[in-house]
Amino acid sequence: MSKEIGMTTKKAEDLSDWYTQVVTKAELADYSPVKGFIVLRPYGYSVWDSIREYLDGRLKDSGHSNAYFPLLIPESFLKKEAAHFTGFTPEVFWVTHAGENQLSERLAIRPTSETIINDAYSKWVRSWRDLPLLINVWNSVLRAEITATRPFLRTTEFLWQEGHTVHATKEDADREVLMILGFYRDLIEQQLAVPVLAGYKSEREKFVGALYTTTLEAMMPDGKAIQMGTSHNLGQNFSKPFEIKYLGKDEESHYAWTTSWGVSWRLLSAMIMLHGDDRGLIVPPHIAPIQVVIVPIYFKDRDKEGINHKVRKVAEILKAAGLRPRLDDREQYTPGWKFNEWELKGIPVRVEVGPRDVERRQVTLVRRDNFQKLNVNDDALVEQVRNCLEGIQTSLFEKATVALKGSIRQAESYEQLKQIIETKGGFVRACWCGNPECEDAIKAEIGATIRTLPLQDEATFTSCIKCSKPSKNVGYFARSY
Amino acid sequence: MSKEIGMTTKKAEDLSDWYTQVVTKAELADYSPVKGFIVLRPYGYSVWDSIREYLDGRLKDSGHSNAYFPLLIPESFLKKEAAHFTGFTPEVFWVTHAGENQLSERLAIRPTSETIINDAYSKWVRSWRDLPLLINVWNSVLRAEITATRPFLRTTEFLWQEGHTVHATKEDADREVLMILGFYRDLIEQQLAVPVLAGYKSEREKFVGALYTTTLEAMMPDGKAIQMGTSHNLGQNFSKPFEIKYLGKDEESHYAWTTSWGVSWRLLSAMIMLHGDDRGLIVPPHIAPIQVVIVPIYFKDRDKEGINHKVRKVAEILKAAGLRPRLDDREQYTPGWKFNEWELKGIPVRVEVGPRDVERRQVTLVRRDNFQKLNVNDDALVEQVRNCLEGIQTSLFEKATVALKGSIRQAESYEQLKQIIETKGGFVRACWCGNPECEDAIKAEIGATIRTLPLQDEATFTSCIKCSKPSKNVGYFARSY
Repeated sequence: MSKEIGMTTKKAEDLSDWYTQVVTKAELADYSPVKGFIVLRPYGYSVWDSIREYLDGRLKDSGHSNAYFPLLIPESFLKKEAAHFTGFTPEVFWVTHAGENQLSERLAIRPTSETIINDAYSKWVRSWRDLPLLINVWNSVLRAEITATRPFLRTTEFLWQEGHTVHATKEDADREVLMILGFYRDLIEQQLAVPVLAGYKSEREKFVGALYTTTLEAMMPDGKAIQMGTSHNLGQNFSKPFEIKYLGKDEESHYAWTTSWGVSWRLLSAMIMLHGDDRGLIVPPHIAPIQVVIVPIYFKDRDKEGINHKVRKVAEILKAAGLRPRLDDREQYTPGWKFNEWELKGIPVRVEVGPRDVERRQVTLVRRDNFQKLNVNDDALVEQVRNCLEGIQTSLFEKATVALKGSIRQAESYEQLKQIIETKGGFVRACWCGNPECEDAIKAEIGATIRTLPLQDEATFTSCIKCSKPSKNVGYFARSY
Repeated sequence: MSKEIGMTTKKAEDLSDWYTQVVTKAELADYSPVKGFIVLRPYGYSVWDSIREYLDGRLKDSGHSNAYFPLLIPESFLKKEAAHFTGFTPEVFWVTHAGENQLSERLAIRPTSETIINDAYSKWVRSWRDLPLLINVWNSVLRAEITATRPFLRTTEFLWQEGHTVHATKEDADREVLMILGFYRDLIEQQLAVPVLAGYKSEREKFVGALYTTTLEAMMPDGKAIQMGTSHNLGQNFSKPFEIKYLGKDEESHYAWTTSWGVSWRLLSAMIMLHGDDRGLIVPPHIAPIQVVIVPIYFKDRDKEGINHKVRKVAEILKAAGLRPRLDDREQYTPGWKFNEWELKGIPVRVEVGPRDVERRQVTLVRRDNFQKLNVNDDALVEQVRNCLEGIQTSLFEKATVALKGSIRQAESYEQLKQIIETKGGFVRACWCGNPECEDAIKAEIGATIRTLPLQDEATFTSCIKCSKPSKNVGYFARSY
């Protein structure tokens, strides 16, 4: 593999350049000629598909169905919820013409679909028998990005899922919001091996139009946080303007309660940054579209046939065991070239088969995360590959958990908060009085926002880090992507 | 089920109204407040998903990968292929602003993605080793519809897949085009039970920018054809303006050959119109998201527990056998109401379990297509349900095939062509000299177009139906949706 194709930047030296190189050289994505847009290439798509398959299964098992709603939303719909409209207007793409004809009302390309979906729900919901209504959508949305494009992290168009549900009571909606946050947490921690802090958003940071927002926040190696997924209780903020009412068991008409929640391909950015190394990507085994790559290694013409037979057999056996192997029997590339390519693409386990492996009825396993080599008897193949995969999954998560915990520091004074944020980064746990003005001042002066407020009471402090007013609230502050 | 919910129009009396009722009352889709757009409801989505799963499997097995490309395309890209631009411009939605900012170049919402995809391919294709490049995309596209919206049939936005491939030679591209047409034919005939005519499009009717287009055409009960899917050899019409070149084994640089092909949710419209009856939809078993609905039938309190136990058991057994059952144990609805609902939704087989069925160790099967009832011993459950499903699948296809064959008539004179099209509809097989002017005149005067030209030579005629010039070409003329 030439220098041009392989990685040329070390992760510790320049995370930003390293990230761009990994994304493009591992062929996850490519830049597009239109600013802010990227192309999701087949390998990147297959990772996104793994994520989708897992989450889709959890959603279906809990009674959610998929549907599809129109791409274009009338401006009048967006205006029905005032905060929502104000929040999204600056980043909306407007359609004004169809062919040569000017439209009578300009249409927004969806930045999110609350308005058009809640309009449909107002027709579909009639009685308590229709509730809960649990629908999810896999689509793409557009929000104009003014800063530099970073694949998966800051893109104008992104793939995501948006769930939209209707419930009879606030309590039902609360339960849905937290159940979904739990699914997201399982996805992110158990599948992507990315540990997160879970909590509420402050009033300033919540979704525009929500009653409250819950969030999951991960920490990157450069000390900046990434918001991984959010789940909102929309209260009756949408059901009232959109007239989503149901006839209760009490024969009275009630406004319903709605929720919405989403995760996007942004999930990939945290997975890439957290686990990758100087050779490229490391894809956590649970989510890896290819878990094992099998490479035949010839020595001149020594038992070529035996090797070819064995690599095919190994692929078959692993596939039959429910694993996801890939046999790389391309003849135009050397084993060394293949090793580099698959390491760049982050395949968790490599199986090498040479003439000696055939003789000794064994294969050689190589782990992507620590490059440990293991000679494995043919009879123990499946078991040992499984062990390797689980070992990598566990090790990635443990390493990342140590890093997350190590990134959380406590500040007792404003100076200390400022100093930690500016020198070390990470999460800073500090007391906050709950006043948005303090929050705004901290953001303006230090560039840190409240990433999350704990789900459970964590009160230990007594005065706000900014204004010193007595308070028991705790916030986790950080700079973020 | 009240009149309002059930079907109120007979299929034979008003196909158009019947169609709209089936689509909306079976909850496949709903109209949207924006003209031309529809909402794909969960039941409709699950049918589309079945289609997607089948085709996606065929594409992956033959080496195709999925990817995702940007929604917005610069106007300058569309202009690169002149015929393509002229063809699509009248129906393109234009984006002019992001938030308050006017864009420097207006952007088209993709009406199809040849241009933006071929631009990416020009970066990815370098050598013969990179070929063939086989990529498919599942997305939605927008083409402004000026006529009245008909769900799945005439909608401004539609879900589809678009495949885009690059090959070294014309012959490779030819093979791809026909292989894909074969996949589409299998999908449409074997899964959707809709028989089709396969062939080429005339120069007038081919895809704008293609070298040639192949097509599959179905015939509806009202004598109008539906284009079900098309597969195009784009020649070098896109590779030249987009500079898709590869270094051959001969060390020379060559322009590549590209193809594109697609099927959309339009497939659903033919399936609905062809198989449905006065009670609603009939979904062909191979593609049905729910193949069997199980309904408990209580007589007062007689052995309620035994019935409940048995319906659950039946659902388990059918699921374990790889079938797709649904247990309808909702207590707020009567069996009669449920029968109507599931008949409207077209579930192929109903299993009824009453107290007598429990006693006699049997169940009652009811076929959706002919309402035949069958008492089946518990031991034969899976086998008999499978028989029923295959019986329905075969019978739907055979009935439709008889109808298709019966709809093909031959015209020896222009008067005869006109008379058949205007009174009977269907396909009319007639000789055509190959001159687009004759084609245009027929379209203008009779409203019929050449739906397809046979793949194999079918020459039997001697003079053009319009201009009487000697010719051996045969065309299938019809009015179409």
